[in-house]
Amino acid sequence: MKPRIHVITLGVADLERALRFYRDGLGFRSEGITGTQFPGDDENPAGDVVMFTLEDGLVFALYPRSELAKDAGVGPEAVAGSGFSIGHLVESREEVDRILDLAGRAGGQVLGPAHERPWGIYSGYFSDPDGHLWEIVYFPPMANPGGSAP
Amino acid sequence: MKPRIHVITLGVADLERALRFYRDGLGFRSEGITGTQFPGDDENPAGDVVMFTLEDGLVFALYPRSELAKDAGVGPEAVAGSGFSIGHLVESREEVDRILDLAGRAGGQVLGPAHERPWGIYSGYFSDPDGHLWEIVYFPPMANPGGSAP
Repeated sequence: MKPRIHVITLGVADLERALRFYRDGLGFRSEGITGTQFPGDDENPAGDVVMFTLEDGLVFALYPRSELAKDAGVGPEAVAGSGFSIGHLVESREEVDRILDLAGRAGGQVLGPAHERPWGIYSGYFSDPDGHLWEIVYFPPMANPGGSAP
Repeated sequence: MKPRIHVITLGVADLERALRFYRDGLGFRSEGITGTQFPGDDENPAGDVVMFTLEDGLVFALYPRSELAKDAGVGPEAVAGSGFSIGHLVESREEVDRILDLAGRAGGQVLGPAHERPWGIYSGYFSDPDGHLWEIVYFPPMANPGGSAP
């Protein structure tokens, strides 16, 4: 199996709300909700989805939890919660703080102030309206030799 | 905020088991568990982590759910379950079936046979030992004009 991930699909409770958070709040570009021509039913998932193509071609999708459960053939309890985090690297501590602030204003929840970790990063988390965790990370550049606390 | 994801971190119950699944079962290359010099405590997360660098530079990490919860400042219930899926694209229907079979033999659970979806893909899901969903997808090439069912 090739070591590659092409798509990350978040299960969401409210597709419109999730779209607003990521498109209008965080500024990701999207054509909005597509796939509405596939209505689905009690057993088959509907097609309504939001897709963002990120840098490096990774597709970031939003899909109702109910349909994700049907599509995967698992119960709704299996797609509750989060159980993972998405890491987003930035160039400075200030940018970490700025993005956390942005996410909070966009309707996310900032999970405490960013801080230094013992492994040499400065980071903080926010959760999106569905509880999915994003960690915004400043990792001092390798170009900073000597390992002094930056 | 730049539309980019740099790291996907899965919360896992047993780091050794997850490492065996992804490294030995699926064939992803890793240096094994690193970060063990950071012991953590009741409030601060330990550093033990497994990292795989995938194609396109995406980092795919495995991290104990307990430590992810501490690192993010959320309760353990917030990192239970899954709530998302990872999409992996392949070149043929046969490869979809082959990877599902591989995942099953590696200790994952194949969630029913792969099948055609109304939106024009052939796909099937497996869950890893922690319940994280992977969808293995064959998307008929755009080079196949006319949209005939391939």
